[in-house]
Amino acid sequence: MSQLSHLDEQGRARMVDVSGKEVTSRIAIARGTIHMGAETLDLILEDKIEKGDVFSVARVAGIMAAKKTAELIPMCHPLNLTAVKLELTPAREPARVDIEATVRVSGKTGVEMEAMTAVAVAGLTIYDMCKAVDREMTLGEIRLAKKSGGKSGTFIRKE
Amino acid sequence: MSQLSHLDEQGRARMVDVSGKEVTSRIAIARGTIHMGAETLDLILEDKIEKGDVFSVARVAGIMAAKKTAELIPMCHPLNLTAVKLELTPAREPARVDIEATVRVSGKTGVEMEAMTAVAVAGLTIYDMCKAVDREMTLGEIRLAKKSGGKSGTFIRKE
Amino acid sequence: MSQLSHLDEQGRARMVDVSGKEVTSRIAIARGTIHMGAETLDLILEDKIEKGDVFSVARVAGIMAAKKTAELIPMCHPLNLTAVKLELTPAREPARVDIEATVRVSGKTGVEMEAMTAVAVAGLTIYDMCKAVDREMTLGEIRLAKKSGGKSGTFIRKE
Amino acid sequence: MSQLSHLDEQGRARMVDVSGKEVTSRIAIARGTIHMGAETLDLILEDKIEKGDVFSVARVAGIMAAKKTAELIPMCHPLNLTAVKLELTPAREPARVDIEATVRVSGKTGVEMEAMTAVAVAGLTIYDMCKAVDREMTLGEIRLAKKSGGKSGTFIRKE
Amino acid sequence: MSQLSHLDEQGRARMVDVSGKEVTSRIAIARGTIHMGAETLDLILEDKIEKGDVFSVARVAGIMAAKKTAELIPMCHPLNLTAVKLELTPAREPARVDIEATVRVSGKTGVEMEAMTAVAVAGLTIYDMCKAVDREMTLGEIRLAKKSGGKSGTFIRKE
Amino acid sequence: MSQLSHLDEQGRARMVDVSGKEVTSRIAIARGTIHMGAETLDLILEDKIEKGDVFSVARVAGIMAAKKTAELIPMCHPLNLTAVKLELTPAREPARVDIEATVRVSGKTGVEMEAMTAVAVAGLTIYDMCKAVDREMTLGEIRLAKKSGGKSGTFIRKE
Repeated sequence: MSQLSHLDEQGRARMVDVSGKEVTSRIAIARGTIHMGAETLDLILEDKIEKGDVFSVARVAGIMAAKKTAELIPMCHPLNLTAVKLELTPAREPARVDIEATVRVSGKTGVEMEAMTAVAVAGLTIYDMCKAVDREMTLGEIRLAKKSGGKSGTFIRKE
Repeated sequence: MSQLSHLDEQGRARMVDVSGKEVTSRIAIARGTIHMGAETLDLILEDKIEKGDVFSVARVAGIMAAKKTAELIPMCHPLNLTAVKLELTPAREPARVDIEATVRVSGKTGVEMEAMTAVAVAGLTIYDMCKAVDREMTLGEIRLAKKSGGKSGTFIRKE
Repeated sequence: MSQLSHLDEQGRARMVDVSGKEVTSRIAIARGTIHMGAETLDLILEDKIEKGDVFSVARVAGIMAAKKTAELIPMCHPLNLTAVKLELTPAREPARVDIEATVRVSGKTGVEMEAMTAVAVAGLTIYDMCKAVDREMTLGEIRLAKKSGGKSGTFIRKE
Repeated sequence: MSQLSHLDEQGRARMVDVSGKEVTSRIAIARGTIHMGAETLDLILEDKIEKGDVFSVARVAGIMAAKKTAELIPMCHPLNLTAVKLELTPAREPARVDIEATVRVSGKTGVEMEAMTAVAVAGLTIYDMCKAVDREMTLGEIRLAKKSGGKSGTFIRKE
Repeated sequence: MSQLSHLDEQGRARMVDVSGKEVTSRIAIARGTIHMGAETLDLILEDKIEKGDVFSVARVAGIMAAKKTAELIPMCHPLNLTAVKLELTPAREPARVDIEATVRVSGKTGVEMEAMTAVAVAGLTIYDMCKAVDREMTLGEIRLAKKSGGKSGTFIRKE
Repeated sequence: MSQLSHLDEQGRARMVDVSGKEVTSRIAIARGTIHMGAETLDLILEDKIEKGDVFSVARVAGIMAAKKTAELIPMCHPLNLTAVKLELTPAREPARVDIEATVRVSGKTGVEMEAMTAVAVAGLTIYDMCKAVDREMTLGEIRLAKKSGGKSGTFIRKE
């Protein structure tokens, strides 16, 4: 078998068979950052203090995207997520918003991709809502911070 | 009005009104990069030389995601895309895959978000297909490289 | 914690964590009514006696909408529904169609929203199919009639 | 032909043929109301003053639902909406939230169903976010308030 | 360039660029047949005479699937369909249901895939609704019967 | 009750209630064939030897379609598939591609429709990618080859 589990012995894509895996409680945490001009961050934060709609919309988008992961990532298994949480933390020097998604499930496979997708779509939504004032924003450092549950056990990224 | 065009004068989210804008030919190019261990890249390239399925699947995922943008990004307008192209370029030092998406439309608003979304989902798909061997991959530098068409004219990012 | 369970202690939206809840057999029944002109109801019923397509289409729309609930309602958990049934009952004085949806699941959380969504979309579909003759139709009284299963036990609305 | 335009001469459902209709600028406004206990409204408004997440989430849900209308209502034509706006207005005696959706398009057919769907899903979302404290909320009076554009001209509901 | 237009000069999939094509009125008609046991057909027709729900559900499924084509077929362009019609014709010797879908659009590319997809999904739906009594049903002969509009002109299949 | 299990005693469509069924390990295998001109097959295979993108795209489309089955087939239950595999086998005399889908789940109901849908959509995708050179291709013989698991036990089609 290929070491890349979504490819079979001929290298052809398939949804890897998890039928025999146990249902366990699983959690995944992903992180990313969207970098922006300092004035762009000011605009978001002004709005935030009053109404928070940029962050609210991005949080909703990230949560809904987590639920759409199996529609977006071709070899992902559909899963009944039991919790999704998005944290958006504005920071300066450099001006940015840090994004963290936490996803949980009781299932036969993990939710790494759901957490990663939530981060990516929350970041893209911030881009969309601010692009009229700042087209140079960059979304990056999307990475798995932690996962636990399942046969492969706990992974914690060194940062 | 808020300078953030997807917020109204009270700072509440809305899908900005483009009814009065002209239908013009528009194009957007976005780029991003997924970084990985050198051995992970070797595995993809070995498979690629024979059958290319990691890259094929990521390309399909990116193209399909471009079409789903208005479902993912809450304030995006639905658009009838007329072309989507994904380029995946493996590179070394550091080991990575560079991703570029080109999207076109004849419409009243641009396709920046469609190109950005295609890049993000293609990158997430590569992550998914390789995560069994490398959980430390990082997806980043997702950015708008170029857009043209529409009232705001041409934008080319300095890199 | 906020008393509104989909908000965290800072009032930010999240998909509430049901990881620790038990899988139980759950059922929810929702009801609503679409009011219309007496002649509109006549038209539906004439067609119904012969072929029933307005009601058939509305029933299919309601059943399919129940399955889409987690895509529509941002904080809803995805669930593998085990039964969905729609009843459409024409009535007069005033002219109307009463709509009832029954949804079942074995899961960690209830299906109230699935039943409510099925009623709403079945009603909207009746509106759509009859709007050429009656734009004044009103869809209303969408409410939870009953739910059982889960820690909070049985709820029966007093009517 | 049946007077119900989505049924053919044999009473079978079809998506009515709008190929020959002109592309015109169209607008539709729909309204509805969700009734609730006075204490429920208090809880929403307390949260609103601070962060507004119940209303933000409902607005996003309604806007995204408008874009999903053709997926939900079987005979609806897919349309490239050019604007969607949701207004949520809390009121008392009786305690309620009034919901108004305004949708625009340049197209061959109108956006009544998109506006109605946006209202319904925004209301269902408020229900979902508050149901832990108030299961008796009722969503109703969903109706078309106004439409203009297209051959059938302007409709304004008498209220 | 590859003769297969959805592959570029390197044989990689892309959504073919139709930006420069003219918007014309286009129509496509596809056909297919689901074969079944004679008793299965009897059961459908008995139900049909009274209420027609198997055929109603299949028609709705086919119409909704036409609208989902660009989500299902990776390289298909999203299009705003202006008409979809499904005809289901029961026949005997051999026992079968003939399926015909007619789809129209004003657009830059044709609707062959939308018509083919509508036929396939209507047939699968008949299978689903009858599979409890007949697992041997076969869906086949799905083919393009006719298309017109666009630069390549009219195609009529010889049958 | 109607012998057609998705119809109730009045012949109205409903999603059949599987709440009381046991969760068992289930598998379904479906098959179909797309017939084409000999030169069309040559073109695919030439491309295949080098990069395989027609087959890769069709495989991805089939796998993703299996996950969308409950959105397409109105009375299908949503299920968390645990494995999906697509095999595409080119053959000659007559020139064709044979398609086989294998789907697995641990659930209360079977995955026949998921396997059938995967075959149909993989075939439609091949049609789409080759239609510029061959509009006469025919997709057919879509059938259930085998299923096991659940109360009704194992079914193997005689071929």
